[in-house]
Amino acid sequence: MTRAWSPVETIRRKRDGLALTTEEIENIVRGYVDGRIPDYQMSALLMAIFFRGLDEREMTDLTMAMARSGDMLDFVDDARVVDKHSTGGVGDKTSLVVVPLVAAAGAVVAKMSGRGLGHSGGTIDKLESIPGFRASLGPEEFRRQVAEVGAVIAGQSGNLVPADKLIYALRDVTATVDSVGLIASSVMSKKIAGGARRLVLDVKAGRGAFMTDREAAVELARAMVAIGRKAGLGVVAVVTAMDQPLGRAVGNALEVAEAVRCLRGEGPEDLEELCLVLGSHMLTLAGLAPTPGEARERLSSVLRGGQALERFRRMVSAQGGDGRVADRPEEVLAAAPVRAEVRAERPGWVRSVDALAVGRLAMALGGGRHRKEDEVDLSVGVVLGAKVGERVAPGEVLATVHARTADQAQEAAAELAAAFDISGEPVAPPALVLETVS
Amino acid sequence: MTRAWSPVETIRRKRDGLALTTEEIENIVRGYVDGRIPDYQMSALLMAIFFRGLDEREMTDLTMAMARSGDMLDFVDDARVVDKHSTGGVGDKTSLVVVPLVAAAGAVVAKMSGRGLGHSGGTIDKLESIPGFRASLGPEEFRRQVAEVGAVIAGQSGNLVPADKLIYALRDVTATVDSVGLIASSVMSKKIAGGARRLVLDVKAGRGAFMTDREAAVELARAMVAIGRKAGLGVVAVVTAMDQPLGRAVGNALEVAEAVRCLRGEGPEDLEELCLVLGSHMLTLAGLAPTPGEARERLSSVLRGGQALERFRRMVSAQGGDGRVADRPEEVLAAAPVRAEVRAERPGWVRSVDALAVGRLAMALGGGRHRKEDEVDLSVGVVLGAKVGERVAPGEVLATVHARTADQAQEAAAELAAAFDISGEPVAPPALVLETVS
Repeated sequence: MTRAWSPVETIRRKRDGLALTTEEIENIVRGYVDGRIPDYQMSALLMAIFFRGLDEREMTDLTMAMARSGDMLDFVDDARVVDKHSTGGVGDKTSLVVVPLVAAAGAVVAKMSGRGLGHSGGTIDKLESIPGFRASLGPEEFRRQVAEVGAVIAGQSGNLVPADKLIYALRDVTATVDSVGLIASSVMSKKIAGGARRLVLDVKAGRGAFMTDREAAVELARAMVAIGRKAGLGVVAVVTAMDQPLGRAVGNALEVAEAVRCLRGEGPEDLEELCLVLGSHMLTLAGLAPTPGEARERLSSVLRGGQALERFRRMVSAQGGDGRVADRPEEVLAAAPVRAEVRAERPGWVRSVDALAVGRLAMALGGGRHRKEDEVDLSVGVVLGAKVGERVAPGEVLATVHARTADQAQEAAAELAAAFDISGEPVAPPALVLETVS
Repeated sequence: MTRAWSPVETIRRKRDGLALTTEEIENIVRGYVDGRIPDYQMSALLMAIFFRGLDEREMTDLTMAMARSGDMLDFVDDARVVDKHSTGGVGDKTSLVVVPLVAAAGAVVAKMSGRGLGHSGGTIDKLESIPGFRASLGPEEFRRQVAEVGAVIAGQSGNLVPADKLIYALRDVTATVDSVGLIASSVMSKKIAGGARRLVLDVKAGRGAFMTDREAAVELARAMVAIGRKAGLGVVAVVTAMDQPLGRAVGNALEVAEAVRCLRGEGPEDLEELCLVLGSHMLTLAGLAPTPGEARERLSSVLRGGQALERFRRMVSAQGGDGRVADRPEEVLAAAPVRAEVRAERPGWVRSVDALAVGRLAMALGGGRHRKEDEVDLSVGVVLGAKVGERVAPGEVLATVHARTADQAQEAAAELAAAFDISGEPVAPPALVLETVS
């Protein structure tokens, strides 16, 4: 007599520290999506996974079972197609720069992005601050732009990874979000179902990141690289600092303007550096450069030569956006009516700028969402006048708040001042890339 | 602004190894019974408790919150009232003996018992093999018998501990049964809601017990004693061996007959010993003897003097049962139509008799329940001819099966043979009482 498969037995096995079989994992994911496995068994299993973890084979099985729970997109079988994903940070407008940058160097990027939630922004919100820009593309339109422009950033379409949506919603209300195996499987299932075959991961670590702890971020990076490798992807993960915001602008339209400056080769330094690092891995994975070092030189010259900015303009125009944003962002993008400045009270060096505090402030100003259904004001935000390691004189502008009302601006400015820590001693500029996992 | 209490936060705190507050535990239990806390949050919390455990204060809070979720019974405020509870074993007819025994020595026992489920039997099923016996008593009837006979064994009445019923059902399907804190709280909540103020716990350890491992049984005993103490009860726990069945009879009517023999002072030795040990703690807790040693002497003389048997007859008669069972159990109790014997093939000493195997066999013969709604055949069962440490000659009866049909009897006899392990070397009789916790 063969015994019927029992979810309780699977929960017990994981609870007792055993590895689940491929079949068990497939049964769990399929059964949960079908509604045959109730929430209460899934949440008990998730908590057991929180405590016992998942090994690389289990994570890969979970990733693939979730990826296969809905549509599996498949792009042209082109070795130049490469994707990029960030775990989310404050002021992270990297995609806006790196996608046209690597496309201008010969790679093809068909990127699906999300909207912001909580203190970290979303690429789609940022792009939508460009008048006319459409993030929602039909499959044919999407394909055509990939072929013609080699660069597209669109919202997620189709029924991608319903298992992840269901499981994530359950994790959120059962305190089982913070599990490396579950996070890694969730991210990778979405990338794999979205058709990614070559992928560069930007895993943020620090105050403004999902993983505040560097070791945890490295563990997550290793887990995702292991899953990618086992699933047959080309994959590199870069663990990068997210203690202070990336670049100087935080807020949707403000970040687009900064991305345009960066595409013109005008920095800010950390943003450009990160785009070159991530882009060089992307170019190498796409087979367009023999090493990241050579890829970087090529990207650097593409950036200085204006081809990256040009590709950005073409991408934006192809999606209905006002291409003049590439020339005069300040004229094209909506500006907030009120500004307030935070100034240094005493001389010194910036020791830290709390990315989480800045991200929360930008959200509180109306630039982000507490809940999925919230409306976003694309014009508001914060622009930093000083970053970690920079010297400031008394009265110098530390940051500027862009707000809807004077009251909001004043209140935000007062809170923003507390996000800065000024030292009497010189402070070394912090490292941006903490670790590379491949 | 005071933050509203959040179940997710409570799950997270337990997940992270923190002790829950009294208020959190009350909120969880009340919210779960009310349906405000969904199953999926409760099961995640139960799994977190499985991994992190509960300290004594948390266990006591959980016990009291569960006990208060339904009716709280309260008997006459009489210091002589004492209760006894066993975690369940095979052949455990102790209550049938010890309740009239201590009542005959002056204590008052108003015991609520359950029906059997799985391989371990239930006291109510056993008593119902006596023609006419009623386990279901009205509150007035119950009270009167307590006052007049000083001994009653009845089924559970009223809405006792609904929280435990709900939580236990959830634990059963989420692999969160095996948690000392949850088991201890479950048992103690039922005893406290049932009105127990003085309690002797028989915690079984071994093959035929819920806790197969002695250390785990001791841990459970300690947990229950700690809860009892914090809740203001007089409580003693005795950890006893349940590797082989207790006594020789396993099966409802067969066990009643054995209990009657024991009440006559005719053994079996281990059953009498356990009744004297548990009874002496009960008598001491009831303030009727200064020490368990003196209590034991008193109980021994009550047993030899026939007062215990007489009290059994009065208890059975008061509940409508045929009191002649105390004189001629074989005539009064239903007998199974077919018998089959298991005989020793070679000489030796009994090294072990697998209590779990014997319990399962008795259940398979129709004497127990797989599910709550199953009907029970009160006449079937197994009687051991030899116990651990006893010498057997070839052809000697190791056990007798009492069955409904010849086929069942033959099949059971063949399986029963495998439950015996015969050694070529002498085997010492095993210890019965493994540890006393008070």
